[in-house]
Amino acid sequence: MSQLKGACIIGQSGGPTAVINASALGVIRTALDTDCITKVYGAAHGIKGVLDDKLYVMDEEDAAELELLKYTPSSALGSCRYKIADPDQDDTDYKRILEIFKKYDVRYFFYNGGNDSMDTCNKISKYMQKAGYECRIMGVPKTIDNDLNGTDHCPGFASAAKYIATSCAEVYQDARVYDTGMVTIIEIMGRHAGWLAGAAALAGVIGCAPDLVYLPEVNFDMDQFLTDVDAIYKKNGNCIAAVSEGIHYADGTFVSEAKTSATDGFGHAQLGGLAALLANVVKEKTGAKVRGIELSLLQRCGAHLASRTDIEESFQSGKTAVEAAVAGETDKMVGFACTREGGKYTCQTKLFDLSAVANFEKKVPMEWINAEGNGVTQAFIDYALPLIQGEPESPKDHSLPRFARLKKVLAR
Amino acid sequence: MSQLKGACIIGQSGGPTAVINASALGVIRTALDTDCITKVYGAAHGIKGVLDDKLYVMDEEDAAELELLKYTPSSALGSCRYKIADPDQDDTDYKRILEIFKKYDVRYFFYNGGNDSMDTCNKISKYMQKAGYECRIMGVPKTIDNDLNGTDHCPGFASAAKYIATSCAEVYQDARVYDTGMVTIIEIMGRHAGWLAGAAALAGVIGCAPDLVYLPEVNFDMDQFLTDVDAIYKKNGNCIAAVSEGIHYADGTFVSEAKTSATDGFGHAQLGGLAALLANVVKEKTGAKVRGIELSLLQRCGAHLASRTDIEESFQSGKTAVEAAVAGETDKMVGFACTREGGKYTCQTKLFDLSAVANFEKKVPMEWINAEGNGVTQAFIDYALPLIQGEPESPKDHSLPRFARLKKVLAR
Repeated sequence: MSQLKGACIIGQSGGPTAVINASALGVIRTALDTDCITKVYGAAHGIKGVLDDKLYVMDEEDAAELELLKYTPSSALGSCRYKIADPDQDDTDYKRILEIFKKYDVRYFFYNGGNDSMDTCNKISKYMQKAGYECRIMGVPKTIDNDLNGTDHCPGFASAAKYIATSCAEVYQDARVYDTGMVTIIEIMGRHAGWLAGAAALAGVIGCAPDLVYLPEVNFDMDQFLTDVDAIYKKNGNCIAAVSEGIHYADGTFVSEAKTSATDGFGHAQLGGLAALLANVVKEKTGAKVRGIELSLLQRCGAHLASRTDIEESFQSGKTAVEAAVAGETDKMVGFACTREGGKYTCQTKLFDLSAVANFEKKVPMEWINAEGNGVTQAFIDYALPLIQGEPESPKDHSLPRFARLKKVLAR
Repeated sequence: MSQLKGACIIGQSGGPTAVINASALGVIRTALDTDCITKVYGAAHGIKGVLDDKLYVMDEEDAAELELLKYTPSSALGSCRYKIADPDQDDTDYKRILEIFKKYDVRYFFYNGGNDSMDTCNKISKYMQKAGYECRIMGVPKTIDNDLNGTDHCPGFASAAKYIATSCAEVYQDARVYDTGMVTIIEIMGRHAGWLAGAAALAGVIGCAPDLVYLPEVNFDMDQFLTDVDAIYKKNGNCIAAVSEGIHYADGTFVSEAKTSATDGFGHAQLGGLAALLANVVKEKTGAKVRGIELSLLQRCGAHLASRTDIEESFQSGKTAVEAAVAGETDKMVGFACTREGGKYTCQTKLFDLSAVANFEKKVPMEWINAEGNGVTQAFIDYALPLIQGEPESPKDHSLPRFARLKKVLAR
């Protein structure tokens, strides 16, 4: 494959994570150090920045500030939830993207996001091929939801999992401190996949597991839930239940649906308020003192509790994306292939076809969920535990996190 | 003062903190190492453990596990919210306490708690004096609310403040990531005092301050709040407001009151649900996308983000309580006297009369709140910032916190 010379764009999309910027740094740092990449642009707010001709010149950034991206949560370049049209229906956006690519001689495009971003990559790539514009397009995954197809796991999942496990362990200490009992409901993100809710069970490694964990892979039954909670509360005087925001009844209705009707830009129902709803139901049924805790945004932006493994792997996925693209690859997502034999964890980057990744949702396998549908098995723990290992060496300023401060010089 | 020989009891009461066990360790470790203290008992669930004759023998605990109390959140001995009667009205409890003290030859009583616990100490001490039973009684303060009278600050406040400032900084990164705007309301504990809500402003030290901070020291005005939020949202496209759970209208009604009517054991209104309530109001008024985040229990049990300064000072307050009691002091609370001249922070333990501490609530001085009543001044930052310094060297197990595991051998 001949060497392709030109500029590159890196964009970020979808919900932030604690380590999405570590991936972006992997792209930016490697691209800056690669001779055939003539200029490195960061798109303001993902594909919107391309459409709006709003590109930051990453070459102008201070190297030390860029390095801090490893420890800076959320999308440093800005994110979006812009759903690009099907090019067969409406190619306006694609024509504009091609125009911008030509304007800045962009030959490499790296998109750092989740499911929808991989779909965006895939569509742009197909359009560019049809238009005969030589350009290499790579997906750099991130999603705390861990629901991307193919890869062993997704950058961002582990840090959120570690935040969740640590917070659940701390709440475990707190929520059983009184001589009077309490039922605590902890609401965890994850949309339609139970990876994050399952991560609450990692607290069991240090003896602080929630009593019950409800994943969206299992149809929720309110009566069974109340029976489960009541039995544990009666036995122990306390009960902690972790619930995924995505739990739903057998007919597909979200348990939380009564509470919110708003949708995000992709038409997904906006979830939340579930902990309060379930706490009320439990209170009515059992008369117990209850508390609903929603981990909310904290679980996805809690960089101070990031997994060092996650940071390093996220950086590596960005780095590999650039190296592979320069070597001639395109239309790929950089995921991971891992082994865990005999408790020894290894992880290598691996390229996946974008078309095989986009628009699939990887769920927790049913054999990793217990027979009662209210917990995960040891296989889940064995899968997730290696991912959360290691503490970040985050620089501090007055004992508070020192985040990257980018200049964001706009390209002219 | 003659040396008083006998056993001691340490009890914990009220809401947990990240460092209350560091104070308890200060008492236990020092008492175990003090010759005239013959036995060290831990009361199960505070004064309830004394009344129920449920005392743990701390002499039986493993020293290394005890040491882990420094990094273990919540009350390791168990807590209670038991309001002891006025002895002039009903002395049943006091007779029982005296009976237990005599049974175990208890001559030292250390009570680790907040406002109500100092009141309990004070009442027990007065009763013991009247009964002619020689006994030294010391309050070891803790409260994230920081509302105890006399002392510069309370053990537990700084760690919660650090959790709040760090979490607000992370949410700041997250909540402004989209090209579409958002209003974020963060609900913070603190009851009737705004110390914790004000701590959100510490995030300003790293450039991530919330735009608005509402403290209960200022009467809340919903129209003014909406005007404040709307103005910032219109100007910046984003707005983050930190609100104390205790904010109330001019007539004293809690803003949150419509949401909850439950009360805790002391007849205090149980607060919460305020973030969701305000988010709804803002959404209706401005049409903005809103998110309400309640830091909930996490802010008081987040030991992984504890302040090392707080841990050390908390330990010291427990240690000083024992040393002072052995030296003849009684009826005192061990607080702190601090200096901050020229940015140099010093802290020394200081004894305060229990009677001057109990049942007073120390509020944030009005001159530390801005003229608009929606933020704190630099003087507040200068006060609070030294307290959150230093990271704990918390031992980990599989990258999760390793908490103390006590044997809790019951005294016979």
